[in-house]
Amino acid sequence: MLVNDRVKRYLLKARYGIEKESKRVDLSGNLAKTDHPKSISLRDDHPYIQRDFSELQMEIITPVTETLEELFDYLAAIHDVAYRSMGENEMLWPLSMPPQLPEKDEDIVIAKLKSAENVRYRQSLSNSYGRRKQMLCGVHFNFEFGDEFIQALFNAQSEIKDYQHFKTEIYLKATRNYLHYRWFVTYFYGASPSSEKNFFEEDSLNEAVRSIRSSKYGYTNSDDVQVSYSSIQNYVSDLSLMVKRGLLSAEREFYSPVRLRGGHHVSDLEDHGISYIELRNIDLNPFENYGISYEQAEFLHLFLLYLLWKDEGENCDEWVKMGNFYNDIVALEHPLEPTQFEIEAENMIDEMEQLAAILNLTISDTLFVHLREMLMDPSKTLAGRLYKESEKSSQGQLATSIAKENYKKSWDKPYQLAGFTDMELSTQILMFDAIQQGIQVEILDRQDQFLKLKLKDHVEYVKNGNMTSKDNYVSTLIMENKTVTKKILQQHGFRVPKGEEFQTIEQALRSYDLFSTKPFVVKPKTTNYGLGISIFKEGANYEDYQKAITLAFKEAPSILVEEFLNGTEYRFFVLNDRVYAVLLRVPANVKGDGKHTIEELVMQKNRDPLRGRDHRTPLESIQLGELENLMLKAQGYRTDSIPENDEIIYLRENSNISTGGDSIDVTDQIPDDYKKIAVDAVSALGVKICGIDLIIENTEVPAANKNAYGIIEANFNPSMYMHIYPYKGESRRLTMHIIHYLFPELLQSQSN
Amino acid sequence: MLVNDRVKRYLLKARYGIEKESKRVDLSGNLAKTDHPKSISLRDDHPYIQRDFSELQMEIITPVTETLEELFDYLAAIHDVAYRSMGENEMLWPLSMPPQLPEKDEDIVIAKLKSAENVRYRQSLSNSYGRRKQMLCGVHFNFEFGDEFIQALFNAQSEIKDYQHFKTEIYLKATRNYLHYRWFVTYFYGASPSSEKNFFEEDSLNEAVRSIRSSKYGYTNSDDVQVSYSSIQNYVSDLSLMVKRGLLSAEREFYSPVRLRGGHHVSDLEDHGISYIELRNIDLNPFENYGISYEQAEFLHLFLLYLLWKDEGENCDEWVKMGNFYNDIVALEHPLEPTQFEIEAENMIDEMEQLAAILNLTISDTLFVHLREMLMDPSKTLAGRLYKESEKSSQGQLATSIAKENYKKSWDKPYQLAGFTDMELSTQILMFDAIQQGIQVEILDRQDQFLKLKLKDHVEYVKNGNMTSKDNYVSTLIMENKTVTKKILQQHGFRVPKGEEFQTIEQALRSYDLFSTKPFVVKPKTTNYGLGISIFKEGANYEDYQKAITLAFKEAPSILVEEFLNGTEYRFFVLNDRVYAVLLRVPANVKGDGKHTIEELVMQKNRDPLRGRDHRTPLESIQLGELENLMLKAQGYRTDSIPENDEIIYLRENSNISTGGDSIDVTDQIPDDYKKIAVDAVSALGVKICGIDLIIENTEVPAANKNAYGIIEANFNPSMYMHIYPYKGESRRLTMHIIHYLFPELLQSQSN
Repeated sequence: MLVNDRVKRYLLKARYGIEKESKRVDLSGNLAKTDHPKSISLRDDHPYIQRDFSELQMEIITPVTETLEELFDYLAAIHDVAYRSMGENEMLWPLSMPPQLPEKDEDIVIAKLKSAENVRYRQSLSNSYGRRKQMLCGVHFNFEFGDEFIQALFNAQSEIKDYQHFKTEIYLKATRNYLHYRWFVTYFYGASPSSEKNFFEEDSLNEAVRSIRSSKYGYTNSDDVQVSYSSIQNYVSDLSLMVKRGLLSAEREFYSPVRLRGGHHVSDLEDHGISYIELRNIDLNPFENYGISYEQAEFLHLFLLYLLWKDEGENCDEWVKMGNFYNDIVALEHPLEPTQFEIEAENMIDEMEQLAAILNLTISDTLFVHLREMLMDPSKTLAGRLYKESEKSSQGQLATSIAKENYKKSWDKPYQLAGFTDMELSTQILMFDAIQQGIQVEILDRQDQFLKLKLKDHVEYVKNGNMTSKDNYVSTLIMENKTVTKKILQQHGFRVPKGEEFQTIEQALRSYDLFSTKPFVVKPKTTNYGLGISIFKEGANYEDYQKAITLAFKEAPSILVEEFLNGTEYRFFVLNDRVYAVLLRVPANVKGDGKHTIEELVMQKNRDPLRGRDHRTPLESIQLGELENLMLKAQGYRTDSIPENDEIIYLRENSNISTGGDSIDVTDQIPDDYKKIAVDAVSALGVKICGIDLIIENTEVPAANKNAYGIIEANFNPSMYMHIYPYKGESRRLTMHIIHYLFPELLQSQSN
Repeated sequence: MLVNDRVKRYLLKARYGIEKESKRVDLSGNLAKTDHPKSISLRDDHPYIQRDFSELQMEIITPVTETLEELFDYLAAIHDVAYRSMGENEMLWPLSMPPQLPEKDEDIVIAKLKSAENVRYRQSLSNSYGRRKQMLCGVHFNFEFGDEFIQALFNAQSEIKDYQHFKTEIYLKATRNYLHYRWFVTYFYGASPSSEKNFFEEDSLNEAVRSIRSSKYGYTNSDDVQVSYSSIQNYVSDLSLMVKRGLLSAEREFYSPVRLRGGHHVSDLEDHGISYIELRNIDLNPFENYGISYEQAEFLHLFLLYLLWKDEGENCDEWVKMGNFYNDIVALEHPLEPTQFEIEAENMIDEMEQLAAILNLTISDTLFVHLREMLMDPSKTLAGRLYKESEKSSQGQLATSIAKENYKKSWDKPYQLAGFTDMELSTQILMFDAIQQGIQVEILDRQDQFLKLKLKDHVEYVKNGNMTSKDNYVSTLIMENKTVTKKILQQHGFRVPKGEEFQTIEQALRSYDLFSTKPFVVKPKTTNYGLGISIFKEGANYEDYQKAITLAFKEAPSILVEEFLNGTEYRFFVLNDRVYAVLLRVPANVKGDGKHTIEELVMQKNRDPLRGRDHRTPLESIQLGELENLMLKAQGYRTDSIPENDEIIYLRENSNISTGGDSIDVTDQIPDDYKKIAVDAVSALGVKICGIDLIIENTEVPAANKNAYGIIEANFNPSMYMHIYPYKGESRRLTMHIIHYLFPELLQSQSN
């Protein structure tokens, strides 16, 4: 059936989700004694970061995605948020097995959840299994076949008439086969070979194995718990029987390596059928940053397709039971020994490879190479590698040093959000904050920086980090049009540079007299990176005026001739009638020390991790190109000159951050009357989120004085990252303000 | 002082305003018996169209403008609104003198204003002067020197220390000189040579004159009313004395040819000085559409500058009184006789011309030529022309035929707004409606179609007629992005064409199987006039798919491959959760009559005044270019083929209005369930003003049926004029709905 042309095209359509548990530890690898980080919104139903059994068990939950790429992007991003939310003194333990546990069971603190019921449930688990067992961690891999795929399969057969029934049968077959063959997964990816000393109350295991966690020594129900996978009805009724008999405290206590999912309760499965399955037997992969590799996920998808195709035994329940038996054998084999199922495994790899070829599946070239390598050489399996590398020191020391590597990667560039580093910085930071606040983030268009944010039923769309539903359309059009912006500000009594707009050179020339003797600037109406702008600080003669006019008209069909305002330009970031940040931008510069050349000083300054290229960092590297050399020359310097101690050498005239300028937060230094001007001007434009540029001659002079300030421009897409990661001064987390503005209920719920 | 360099540059800076009264008449030239049109908002304080003394006297009021061009644009526009609001049975009388008046004074109906005080005032005027005199009409020209000009003059002198005092003195001098020399204006532009028989109760004038209205027979106060212009204090105290003595019922009854303006009451003048002056002695120019020519307005500006420069007599009051005397002489001269002030007039023309030359003023080349011609040949003055042309029939008949010409011009292209025909049609129509509703319209950026609308304190900004404060920014960004639009609509359960977005050719090719056998379309993500689009109604082979992909990638960095939906495309115009119009667009076509060739049929169809070129008309002319010829050829026709009776020949595949397509209103034919789909989809996007395109296979099938419809696109700047002036079907005045949406208080006040 899979080979059917109509089925084939949808084979790789699927939906994925990962839940990954890990323990928080301190930088020495000891279990953390702290509470779950307060910076993460402390909701029991946080969509991305929750607590598992214990307060120190962090569970990272990805959203459902339609590609593995996206799945791993989210996994990376949520890890970044988790790391940076824990603070600089903690990290995540990379192993399924816990580090050294406290002597007393009670010292393992149960998660301090809000819901009393959830706490009670954990208490009952603690009573039944002991808290030590609860410290095992792993990855749960949620998998749903694409609907178009199942639909195509359904259409290609005629045996089963009901679609939902068919779908459920598909999942049941895959599940039974998975349970039967799961030793195959345990062999390659089992990764819990040994425990710290006091994990087991009596020393049950003397030798290293492939996977303690997947074995009978792991986290399993008692042998009395027996549930049939022969039909959904049997599954549901068996489960409820187990609960009735008191063998399980609740249905969710059923720890099968595969959980059937659909609806909120197990009983919903009967009505709605299975909508996806959850594979729960995946140990944390210690060699991967995020506990599971992309190749592993690809393998699981392909494996499930293979299991759909592969015949199963006639007696379903027996078939599953055999699987448990086989798995326990493989799980308890020594990690460096070959498995006794080597021949079956080889056959299965061959079959899977053939299937992939027949179906034209595009998967990593290396998958089958790696599987064969691991089969040939057990020391290349995850358990084998972990066991071997631990021998050099100890499993605990190895895990601690791996954890530290992961920790470093996450702190290395704190302004980036792993998984989404191709997006704009401000959007990355906003996504970080949203994830932390427990807001669901969906990317509607990645290149376009278009996000959907969702908190319960409240949806907000955001583009470029600050284009939202809060601003009205015509206000942004006002800001886009400099003439209109100025007219409206002027009508509201604000000082703007006086000037005129011209559509023809002749018109502009005719008005020469209006400007000739004053400082003025000529610019295209729509400026593009400052092209076509001429500044005359002392007025201009007719020839120069004419030249400037001609230049400006080369850039745009309309030009502006405006009064030039003296003073310093400040960027005010205004949000909902309040100034949240004021920034001063200083042209690219270095400060001399009397020893190093300008070139050396530039290299030193560029070493700051905040500096880089192409807007992927909060600051740009200072260049030493043509313009910088000209600027140095004009001041009598060369790149090998050695400036005196504390001498400031400017390398650019313009103060743009994009040409190496410094961003300096001056929010607390700017007097309130100037902030009020900014707020009132933005309000006059009817705008809620705005970066407004004021020229101020002297901030100590009251704003009410004549010509104390002038408003240059209002920006509807103001850069935020330059305020969040300034070169100097305090960081202003504008993205968080945006989020609280869009979702005011967050602040309310926090104050409750 | 005027020659001073710092003064010179501001000489032509000024602010203008016109009030123009005229009488409504029927198409035969008899006074209208109807009320002021109800379509014009019936506010006593309507900013543009009010009633003067009588219900049938319409007063057209321009806003204050900074250029004469703008002044005349508004004058033209408000006239268009007035004409089309009166309906097709009325027109405006072009003369200052009324047509034949009713026998009884009481039959001249006093304006039915809302304010009882305003009605009482008119009653008192009726008692003092009789209603016949009130039927004289004219133009009031409001003039204010540019503030920079007066400021520069002020700085160039040292005599007067107080700026406000200086400014008042400037206006007083200009006023006294204007009063002294106003005979000069009367000679050239006086235009009320004779009256209809029963205008005067006794026959006071047997001979024709230059201006009855400006003479003592016109609308003047009694001789006892004497007011000094020597200082603002004297002016104010004299006026209040006149009122105290009962010679005037109110200060506003003082009918001087120049009124000093500033503040709401005359007494304010003392505190705030004069801010502008109102010239009231201008007869309606019967030969101009709008009662005054541009050249006349230029003349008045230059004349006032000249009068500022020209010395005045030492005794102010005597100087003004002499002016009254001179003016009466000139006003009562025969229109075809030279004036007795010919030599003075010639000198004044010479002086004005010299002044204009010294000051480098840019004014019409023809002004002085015309003045000299009129001075040499009195039959070329307005009074002379009117008198001479009336001799052929009668003054009444001449006026009726002039009125009809003006009437025709205003009705010729009812979709245009005179004065603003360079703007987009939808904006012109919106401005029309706003003016009619008494909303102040300010153009913030003409090329950018950016308007400021104001009703009392309520301001709304509008761009392109439908971009407003009612829509939020991110919603328009959603509509701008087709992928995002589709995702959101799909998440809300609407049917959109299934498809995928691709960034590379390889990606797209890999997904060939997903589309190959179904109808589908390949298009660039950002389409531009349909370039790069390929439609495969029957699926496609791999080669054609590849070609289409390559073509699309030539137009944009991302492309979409989408399911192609069969059916008819309808445009739904949704405003604030309601469908106001549904339009069907039909490709350019002609209908045969068995006699004419296709070329002739096209020419016939193009004669419709709704058709034209370049979006200046609601429909575009059908072309017979390369594409049309190809299309004909494919059907076996040539342009000289003669189609059978009622045969429809299509000349285009695409249905765009811009390529000659027909717009057909089907609002009433579309079932409500489809309208609900449109409303709900627009609401899901969070949009208030939207043109949304639905493909419907059969409108008789319920919208709830599977695949009954598909949503193609949502437009944030939907064309409105095509609904307002459709080729067939009912007009839907969307611009008025927009105005009522922006200003809901309009509907409330109308229902009061």
